[in-house]
Amino acid sequence: MNPHDKHRSFIVHETVPFNAGPPLDLLGIAQITPTPLFFVRSHAPIPEVDPAEYRLTINGMVNHPLSLSLTDLRHFQPRTVVATIQCAGNRRVHLTQLGDIPGELIWDNEAISTAEWTGVPLREVLMRAGVQVSAKHVAFVGLDQCEKNGKTFGFGGSIPISKAMQSDVLLAYQMNGEPIPPVHGFPLRVVVPGYIGARSVKWLTELTVQAEPSDNHYQARAYKLFPPTVNSQNVDWAKGIMLGELSVNAIICGPLKHETVPAGDVLVFGFAISGGGRNIERVDVSADDGKTWETAELLAQPGNREHPYAWRFWRLRVKLEPGEHQLVARAWDAAANSQPEDIAQIWNFKGYMNNAYHRVPVIAE
Amino acid sequence: MNPHDKHRSFIVHETVPFNAGPPLDLLGIAQITPTPLFFVRSHAPIPEVDPAEYRLTINGMVNHPLSLSLTDLRHFQPRTVVATIQCAGNRRVHLTQLGDIPGELIWDNEAISTAEWTGVPLREVLMRAGVQVSAKHVAFVGLDQCEKNGKTFGFGGSIPISKAMQSDVLLAYQMNGEPIPPVHGFPLRVVVPGYIGARSVKWLTELTVQAEPSDNHYQARAYKLFPPTVNSQNVDWAKGIMLGELSVNAIICGPLKHETVPAGDVLVFGFAISGGGRNIERVDVSADDGKTWETAELLAQPGNREHPYAWRFWRLRVKLEPGEHQLVARAWDAAANSQPEDIAQIWNFKGYMNNAYHRVPVIAE
Repeated sequence: MNPHDKHRSFIVHETVPFNAGPPLDLLGIAQITPTPLFFVRSHAPIPEVDPAEYRLTINGMVNHPLSLSLTDLRHFQPRTVVATIQCAGNRRVHLTQLGDIPGELIWDNEAISTAEWTGVPLREVLMRAGVQVSAKHVAFVGLDQCEKNGKTFGFGGSIPISKAMQSDVLLAYQMNGEPIPPVHGFPLRVVVPGYIGARSVKWLTELTVQAEPSDNHYQARAYKLFPPTVNSQNVDWAKGIMLGELSVNAIICGPLKHETVPAGDVLVFGFAISGGGRNIERVDVSADDGKTWETAELLAQPGNREHPYAWRFWRLRVKLEPGEHQLVARAWDAAANSQPEDIAQIWNFKGYMNNAYHRVPVIAE
Repeated sequence: MNPHDKHRSFIVHETVPFNAGPPLDLLGIAQITPTPLFFVRSHAPIPEVDPAEYRLTINGMVNHPLSLSLTDLRHFQPRTVVATIQCAGNRRVHLTQLGDIPGELIWDNEAISTAEWTGVPLREVLMRAGVQVSAKHVAFVGLDQCEKNGKTFGFGGSIPISKAMQSDVLLAYQMNGEPIPPVHGFPLRVVVPGYIGARSVKWLTELTVQAEPSDNHYQARAYKLFPPTVNSQNVDWAKGIMLGELSVNAIICGPLKHETVPAGDVLVFGFAISGGGRNIERVDVSADDGKTWETAELLAQPGNREHPYAWRFWRLRVKLEPGEHQLVARAWDAAANSQPEDIAQIWNFKGYMNNAYHRVPVIAE
């Protein structure tokens, strides 16, 4: 159960900052990821926070700037939301096969997990502070101390005010019914369901209502999607898509890549997810590298069923003759968006938002 | 200017019911489509309505059922929204090349247009009627008389209550600053920005707040997306994705297919669109059938820039040597969704929601 009380099978990419996640065969076993299996993406050492001294500052374009203790925050009506958090860099490893992605963590599928989060809806805190009408964004800063380009600063990011006012965006102090562990943001973190994980800022210390997106490095430069022609030599950081909502994606959790399975009926299973609360409407599975497809069974949606912010598990039995087979999965969401077939079409030099068809070669014997 | 005062170049698929749209070279000339060029999708003859006698009925799960005249409706604060309306069957012609799609209109790209709509926000009418808390959907019925399976009924559909309460959903009585013409829904139509056109019910007569989606043929059976294995013989109409928000899409309006252009710098231009108010973040253009891509220039977004419900025009100059070239366009929206490369991956027997890369072969001389 180390480091940070994680499962012994945890895949550790870095220890300081701690960046690690669960292997795929454990990720697919539970709709609510057990906390020891929940992935961790951090950009600096884990800060130690004294909960008695802790204060959250709310400032910027508000009528009543606030400084709230944890006791103050617990006096708001709590809300519980089941939300999947996914790093924008999840599935990066497949993109590295098409071109170099220097300086980034090479995640396979382990930068995604789901928890039941409890806390104060951000909108309740904003309404108490009184948001001014010209406000457009809410910026978050954490207590961690990142170092970039000779500067030390807290990890930060922002979301549009329209998203911030949705009741499912939380200032969370509990994860799966317990106080949030230090590695996941103790004592308070933002949970922005349906967005890339970077916007769910941990160890939250300051919340600023403002007219523009955050100018923090991790909003203004990192976590941006660039066209395939852009690379580290010619990049203009002012450009690029500032990532927010997650795209539609599907992952096969079993069988695993290159697994040998008994020929005959084989259970294929996994999860699918989309962003912005859009429902997963269908998952297709192919056992012949995309030539033919069958529709998988969708399991019950965890959490909010009208605006799902959690992944959806699916399964299908396929018949495999002895030999090699390429399993493929793809999902369709409520906006009738599906995924790119060919990963080459979505390559980008930072390796973000890989949602190409998930392909899993297996051998049936 | 006939029939229905449409432009002489209008592509007419059927005269009764009237189904027709503008050719691509005219669609791309104006961000707000001139009314004589705005496409028409209807399922029955155009009803004649006496505006003095007209009443809109609001019933179902409301505290105060209402019957509103046009004068009553004009007493609400009006709102103007720039919205693109796109039929779920737009671009169906490309899907027919992969399999038979019987009994459907074979649209190319002419089932899409953009107008400036003025009317009452639906939410204002709903709030006056008092929506009950258990309500989940708002169903619409038109005055047209469709015939299906031996029954005669008004065209209908529904949207979730969460969408209905967004201020940009209108009960519109003006189109491009004039009373809505009969063929577009006089005296009153719904405009559901960011959704497939079928939900923007014309000649609106009844509005019912209810717990379930509409059981009207055009919600419960038509306008559903089925997997590639489903056909007219084995279809189970209770299944399929009930279409709502539009997926991300991009169209090249010029050069046209098989057009001969002077070799050298060639202006490629068109539009891109996504659903649900999601911004178009980037459009990529390839002049070599997708081997390499360049980023197009995005023109100013018409209408609401924070929650765009209108298409976005784009353009790029590409250098073409003498010879044959395959131009391709694809878009990326704010949720980092892009489009399927291969149209075979999205074939469905009703021919809906074709958002595969748009490919345009041209000859440079």
